[in-house]
Amino acid sequence: MAAIKGIFVPNIVPYDTQGRIHEDELRRIIRWLVSKEVTGFYPNGSMGEFIRLSYEERKRVLKIVVEEAAGKPILAGAAEPNVDLVLEMCRYCADLGCRAVSITGPYYYKLTQESIEQYFREIAAKSPIDIVVYNIPAFANEISVPVLKRLALDCPRIVGTKDTSKDMCRFQQTLREIKSQRPDFAVLIGWEELLCTAMFLGADGGTLSSGGVAPEVVMKLYRECRDGRWEAARETQFQLLELFSLMVGAPNFPEGFRQGYELRGFTVGHARFPLSDREETLIAEMRGKLACVLADCGFAEAASECSRGGGGCQTAGSGLDMDAVVRAVLQSLKK
Amino acid sequence: MAAIKGIFVPNIVPYDTQGRIHEDELRRIIRWLVSKEVTGFYPNGSMGEFIRLSYEERKRVLKIVVEEAAGKPILAGAAEPNVDLVLEMCRYCADLGCRAVSITGPYYYKLTQESIEQYFREIAAKSPIDIVVYNIPAFANEISVPVLKRLALDCPRIVGTKDTSKDMCRFQQTLREIKSQRPDFAVLIGWEELLCTAMFLGADGGTLSSGGVAPEVVMKLYRECRDGRWEAARETQFQLLELFSLMVGAPNFPEGFRQGYELRGFTVGHARFPLSDREETLIAEMRGKLACVLADCGFAEAASECSRGGGGCQTAGSGLDMDAVVRAVLQSLKK
Amino acid sequence: MAAIKGIFVPNIVPYDTQGRIHEDELRRIIRWLVSKEVTGFYPNGSMGEFIRLSYEERKRVLKIVVEEAAGKPILAGAAEPNVDLVLEMCRYCADLGCRAVSITGPYYYKLTQESIEQYFREIAAKSPIDIVVYNIPAFANEISVPVLKRLALDCPRIVGTKDTSKDMCRFQQTLREIKSQRPDFAVLIGWEELLCTAMFLGADGGTLSSGGVAPEVVMKLYRECRDGRWEAARETQFQLLELFSLMVGAPNFPEGFRQGYELRGFTVGHARFPLSDREETLIAEMRGKLACVLADCGFAEAASECSRGGGGCQTAGSGLDMDAVVRAVLQSLKK
Amino acid sequence: MAAIKGIFVPNIVPYDTQGRIHEDELRRIIRWLVSKEVTGFYPNGSMGEFIRLSYEERKRVLKIVVEEAAGKPILAGAAEPNVDLVLEMCRYCADLGCRAVSITGPYYYKLTQESIEQYFREIAAKSPIDIVVYNIPAFANEISVPVLKRLALDCPRIVGTKDTSKDMCRFQQTLREIKSQRPDFAVLIGWEELLCTAMFLGADGGTLSSGGVAPEVVMKLYRECRDGRWEAARETQFQLLELFSLMVGAPNFPEGFRQGYELRGFTVGHARFPLSDREETLIAEMRGKLACVLADCGFAEAASECSRGGGGCQTAGSGLDMDAVVRAVLQSLKK
Repeated sequence: MAAIKGIFVPNIVPYDTQGRIHEDELRRIIRWLVSKEVTGFYPNGSMGEFIRLSYEERKRVLKIVVEEAAGKPILAGAAEPNVDLVLEMCRYCADLGCRAVSITGPYYYKLTQESIEQYFREIAAKSPIDIVVYNIPAFANEISVPVLKRLALDCPRIVGTKDTSKDMCRFQQTLREIKSQRPDFAVLIGWEELLCTAMFLGADGGTLSSGGVAPEVVMKLYRECRDGRWEAARETQFQLLELFSLMVGAPNFPEGFRQGYELRGFTVGHARFPLSDREETLIAEMRGKLACVLADCGFAEAASECSRGGGGCQTAGSGLDMDAVVRAVLQSLKK
Repeated sequence: MAAIKGIFVPNIVPYDTQGRIHEDELRRIIRWLVSKEVTGFYPNGSMGEFIRLSYEERKRVLKIVVEEAAGKPILAGAAEPNVDLVLEMCRYCADLGCRAVSITGPYYYKLTQESIEQYFREIAAKSPIDIVVYNIPAFANEISVPVLKRLALDCPRIVGTKDTSKDMCRFQQTLREIKSQRPDFAVLIGWEELLCTAMFLGADGGTLSSGGVAPEVVMKLYRECRDGRWEAARETQFQLLELFSLMVGAPNFPEGFRQGYELRGFTVGHARFPLSDREETLIAEMRGKLACVLADCGFAEAASECSRGGGGCQTAGSGLDMDAVVRAVLQSLKK
Repeated sequence: MAAIKGIFVPNIVPYDTQGRIHEDELRRIIRWLVSKEVTGFYPNGSMGEFIRLSYEERKRVLKIVVEEAAGKPILAGAAEPNVDLVLEMCRYCADLGCRAVSITGPYYYKLTQESIEQYFREIAAKSPIDIVVYNIPAFANEISVPVLKRLALDCPRIVGTKDTSKDMCRFQQTLREIKSQRPDFAVLIGWEELLCTAMFLGADGGTLSSGGVAPEVVMKLYRECRDGRWEAARETQFQLLELFSLMVGAPNFPEGFRQGYELRGFTVGHARFPLSDREETLIAEMRGKLACVLADCGFAEAASECSRGGGGCQTAGSGLDMDAVVRAVLQSLKK
Repeated sequence: MAAIKGIFVPNIVPYDTQGRIHEDELRRIIRWLVSKEVTGFYPNGSMGEFIRLSYEERKRVLKIVVEEAAGKPILAGAAEPNVDLVLEMCRYCADLGCRAVSITGPYYYKLTQESIEQYFREIAAKSPIDIVVYNIPAFANEISVPVLKRLALDCPRIVGTKDTSKDMCRFQQTLREIKSQRPDFAVLIGWEELLCTAMFLGADGGTLSSGGVAPEVVMKLYRECRDGRWEAARETQFQLLELFSLMVGAPNFPEGFRQGYELRGFTVGHARFPLSDREETLIAEMRGKLACVLADCGFAEAASECSRGGGGCQTAGSGLDMDAVVRAVLQSLKK
């Protein structure tokens, strides 16, 4: 099996005006990201609102992503409500040819580390597909490093971890205590502010939501890190911070990222959660700012919504427009 | 509509040896609790592992409870994954004749109070059934008192709250700021340690999981509180603490309560979450202790598992055996 | 020794325009509170900014309070920086004839329960004066109920606890597990919202900062609780909530309470911590509202600062003006 | 003034058998660290138990450190109980020729960011010496990045920050938002697990307690980072993790670090906080392990307490024994 390394883009789910999955637009997004050369995809994660979809919808999203991924590896979220359903989803993912599934700690109930370890052991013993343990303590029970270490050393099916804890002491311990003993264990970072830092310490890559909005920037950063061009990487990382902080700071996560997709030319609709009037206003304001940052990055299609008056920017098509880049840089320097 | 007051028992879901819902045993439990004169039922809550059931299973559990409830009021959990599914469940509950639904704050994602308010407003505007707002900050986003107050004053469909925060400052503020302005707003406590305290302050009752294991004790406590017999109530409350602390302190919540049902004569199986070997041992030990406490309460059917050797207790049948009560009390006094 | 029960008022420290302890005003406050028949005093606690005073200043404050207390019992804060200094302060308090000292869990460093237990054991073994263990987890390390229980059962010098955790499950456990085994162990509540609740459950009284601003209300509430007049007590408790929430919600704790003293006719100056301009404005606004609430309570001296135009209120002198009370009640009813 | 960069060692305070400051041993430690070429010293911080010393003791410690520091820069803790005392300590530090003071957020009370900003503004306006803002949210109120940024841009006296939050998102934001606008603003990391990461991102150095126990390792790591020898740095960082985790994980912080000093040949006594019998045992066990790790690092004087039987290690004298290093490395490789 191929090593799990690089950037796996956590997919959003576009909805149509009736709130159903907008399948054509999802296909168009995946094809666009394939053309941008992202490493792979990560459907049915937090960004994909897995918890707000029905079981059947999650299967449908996954199928579409696989069909359009052009053979790129898929890391599929499989944090289903109970062990039987997790295993059913694992079989489904295996049948579709996914590279691995990603499973968060259980959510809602607070559980002991012992219970969580047993949960992953039971799944790992029966899963027909490799498993990445996804640690996201803000939303679900944390999986401690000692538990993760025992799982990594005992369970062949557990082949890596995705960490969204933002805790770099933990991340470093994971590398030092687990990867040192099992070098093929994939350690991915799940928070864009820390990609450069994580790769400097020895990470294999990341699952970064910004990678769906600005794949050009995120892949550039990844390549710079991978090749040890740290000077350049730090600068690209700082550029990414601005983009990310706007999207992650918007009300009603993951709404901010969805606005980013809209600015790149996709019609994705709102997240599946009601917005107050005031939140709608805040999001419109944030979208205006985001348009300018994206225009400054050289993404011409975003420029038309930049209220700063960057009138020079063209709105023609997607992809990197070199004229727009030059104009955006000049515009940025004038500030 | 009848006022929402009294004790609503949060139901567990018994499973058969294949892990499917054990429908006959669920029916038997409900009928038994009807015979014990609990006020009503609360299916599909945290105790009922709603989050580990499929959507169809939740509907099935609810249907069974309604069929066996002998007309007693049902407060049905309806914390579904998105607004559309919540509303679909609300319609289902309305069709079955439930008294109201209970909806937790959204879980998994961390949301602002503004988003949470909008969520409940949207549901309240479209629901065909009354709504109780369920605050359980340990598991789901907290709903602040100011938000709850605006919902209570603006939304006719929002008719009460169930509070499992254990925060008596909050509880008192809820009574003072909301119930004072809308006296029919039901304020229920969702934590057995605090029933007596809550009712002293003016609560309408509670949803207490112990009520499914020791309905005799919980209903006695409720009646004492309702009638202002505070001296007696405090003593019964203290008695309940021992029972509750054993069940709530067991590994793998709500496993401890399930052991209580077993000791009262039901076959409910384990909760839908794996147990480690060590946890199995801990639970077996806890069950032995719980058997003694239940025997001391006069529940003769539990006595056979009390390893303390309270040999006087008979194991004949379920229900309150007056001889057993007398023996258990004497036994307890001897300690 | 006398039992520790009733209301111990946590004293503030008035400062003069140079920021030094305003000794005359401190004396005047104590004498006034003596005339209001509070049970006793609690100097050098959180309200008294013990941590912002020098060691010598703390001794000075205590001496003044003792001199003016007219024989009423003193519970003196003695949370000094290390065991030797705690013991030195204990000796000082003993020499002055205080009833007991009150000691918080250590602050700043996070310590284990084992370390905290050892800390109190060492102090208890050498102290010449009784000790009340003060649990205030928002500011200092929590002292768990099991630790407190062992201390209570093993150390004769540890005679009670003051609890400011706001956790009524904990409070009830303290009563049930400790007071049941050692009935003379004093259990005091340190949060005014919960006085009525705490006494209903069996508390011996409280240390309530509002007692320095509205001793009439707090002592009335205490007496109602003590005598089991619960109906009246609940109403008085609700009245106290309004007063308390304004003072505790003001910026720069304990500044809000200091404003209350000012409105009762004392010149206390600001707390020993800088205020921003915006905070000064917020506090002035809060003072206006507090004046009205105090006027409504019948404290005529506060009425002149009530901007609501309750023109009927006189500003003559301190103490309870019966005319003002009647007017304030009428005014309140009209709202 | 010299830039604040490099490694400032947070000093412990050795005590004699009566619990008084052991002045001779403190002098000996400082001279030893000077010989090891640490950059500077950081007395009266968390490691130095500033909060358990009296005001006069803190002054005494500082004076001794200055006298023995051989002109190396001193960053002196000045987190005194109130603004006047902070300023008095600032003047004292200025008179002694310290490079700057370090001030934590206020502790004990929970304060708003606005209050904290005002606190630092008031001190900065009047201090005769440069100030480093010390963020240690586990023990004292956090100082947010926006507040720190305003302070950095408005107050010439505020010249840097020391961060012990372990939050690398925050650390990176500090560098990007403050240092980018004020390049002379010193950004120091206060957590040894993160030195390499922090310097990779652009930090100026750190205050690392391990630097007092293993100055050879910490200074080596610092130099490797400073010179961009990242491959080597990461390895040294991993080596430091083992040392640090033992010391920081010991009961009764900072006791673990004190044991390290003892193993390097100093007599420092216990921290100023009681130890239970069980904790004494745990610390003795930890000391045995630490001795082995230090011996493996080549610190021969620690080897005699290493129970693993690394018989080859000599116990002759302090300092780096090259023979011992070679033996320790060989020993380590054999494992």
